[in-house]
Amino acid sequence: MTTAIRSEFDQGIALDQEGPGRYRAELGEGWQIGGGVNGGLLLALAGHALSKEHPEHPDPLSVSGYYLSASHPGPVEVRTESIRNGRSLSTGTASLIQDGEERLRVLATYGDLDARAGEVHTSAVPFELPPPEQCIGVEHAPKVLIEQAALLERFDLRLDPATIGWALGEPSRNGRIQGWFRLADGREPDPLLLLLVADALPPVTFDLGLPGWAPTIELTVHLRARPAPGWLRVSHATRNLAGGYFEEDAEVWDSAGRLVAQSRQLARAPRQS
Amino acid sequence: MTTAIRSEFDQGIALDQEGPGRYRAELGEGWQIGGGVNGGLLLALAGHALSKEHPEHPDPLSVSGYYLSASHPGPVEVRTESIRNGRSLSTGTASLIQDGEERLRVLATYGDLDARAGEVHTSAVPFELPPPEQCIGVEHAPKVLIEQAALLERFDLRLDPATIGWALGEPSRNGRIQGWFRLADGREPDPLLLLLVADALPPVTFDLGLPGWAPTIELTVHLRARPAPGWLRVSHATRNLAGGYFEEDAEVWDSAGRLVAQSRQLARAPRQS
Repeated sequence: MTTAIRSEFDQGIALDQEGPGRYRAELGEGWQIGGGVNGGLLLALAGHALSKEHPEHPDPLSVSGYYLSASHPGPVEVRTESIRNGRSLSTGTASLIQDGEERLRVLATYGDLDARAGEVHTSAVPFELPPPEQCIGVEHAPKVLIEQAALLERFDLRLDPATIGWALGEPSRNGRIQGWFRLADGREPDPLLLLLVADALPPVTFDLGLPGWAPTIELTVHLRARPAPGWLRVSHATRNLAGGYFEEDAEVWDSAGRLVAQSRQLARAPRQS
Repeated sequence: MTTAIRSEFDQGIALDQEGPGRYRAELGEGWQIGGGVNGGLLLALAGHALSKEHPEHPDPLSVSGYYLSASHPGPVEVRTESIRNGRSLSTGTASLIQDGEERLRVLATYGDLDARAGEVHTSAVPFELPPPEQCIGVEHAPKVLIEQAALLERFDLRLDPATIGWALGEPSRNGRIQGWFRLADGREPDPLLLLLVADALPPVTFDLGLPGWAPTIELTVHLRARPAPGWLRVSHATRNLAGGYFEEDAEVWDSAGRLVAQSRQLARAPRQS
């Protein structure tokens, strides 16, 4: 073992610069879910490219991704463009292009998460979760889920037994899935990883008795603090399944008990079975 | 009085086409709030331009606005660009430019809100609100608020007495403001108006005892159904004021009891007083 080996996640978002605002990347085999590459990984890849656009504002604060077509493993081109470079914030846009087709368009604002890190007046409290050793690892998930989600092998994901009924054919229908998350290879969290984590749990519609995959239309992540090392506590929740779409709200809390990311996505609902 | 007079809102988002994807508009005097033009009106103006880009997909489904600099009344240029024109959804981008400076960049996906309108499996329930005649009109708001917010004269806004303590110097500190909304001139709601309504109430930080204005960094609105005529029920809520920013979640319910829009914005917090 050598420390020179990059983590799987850092390999997954690695970029080769080809020119100003032009990069090549390789979507690895291990990040697939359902028919495509996980949307959170794509957002982290675009977010990584944009962090190079504004070196004085290294941290994503708000990242919005609009998903245009399904990606597959293989080479991808990333193009970035700065829109505004301000005193405390910078805004830019990124595109992921594969086989000549745009897969993802991102609009994002970057800043410095350490600038006013000590000012915490939040009234939010972390949700209750049994300790990781009392939660359910994906090694116990139905085989059909693991086969469709190669990326689960890269995660150490421990789901709350109270929100895993769907895996046993008994969805709670509360519209909530929650659990502990860390990368299987021990790579510690940072803001770019939070972009992946916002889309890392199974679709919350599983808990509504809809086992199909749910393609993301739009996903916005607000990064609210730099995460401390260790386990992340993640929840996905939905209330409004209607008109063929649903919202999925995610919260990510770090080991220091801080709400480090809030996200919402609009996704296409699987058809009622 | 003649029915040929356009509503104030329709005048506010009116566009003169100058070429493909190029429009001129006029930001009116009556939409100011604090130092600039209301962000919801700007989003509705950009959303109006994008609805012309994809006539077969007339309805905004998800609209994300990144606010780059403060607007003022006067002429503005709107530029749109189609990114993808799909079978059931189209995605495009719009820019608002004033005095040669970009004010707002928008990324949005359009579709047809009537396509699967009857499929409602939501578990969300509308929040309780006293009837409009028991709520507080802005004519009772502190003069300093009305002076800073010209747009309040265009709204028939009735705030819940339970969430208006801040106007009397007694903020509840619960981080919630809610009330009834309709346009003062009786113009009925449609999806473009919902883009305005998502940012129409006073900043929720008023209820945290922070009376300053709170510039929006990013605002995403998910349009979930075509609104019925009549009053809209609107809430703004926040839980996480930290690191100099806060999130503001808005819900808009129509007179038929349907959750027609969900939005979240990231805004810069006023300094603690």
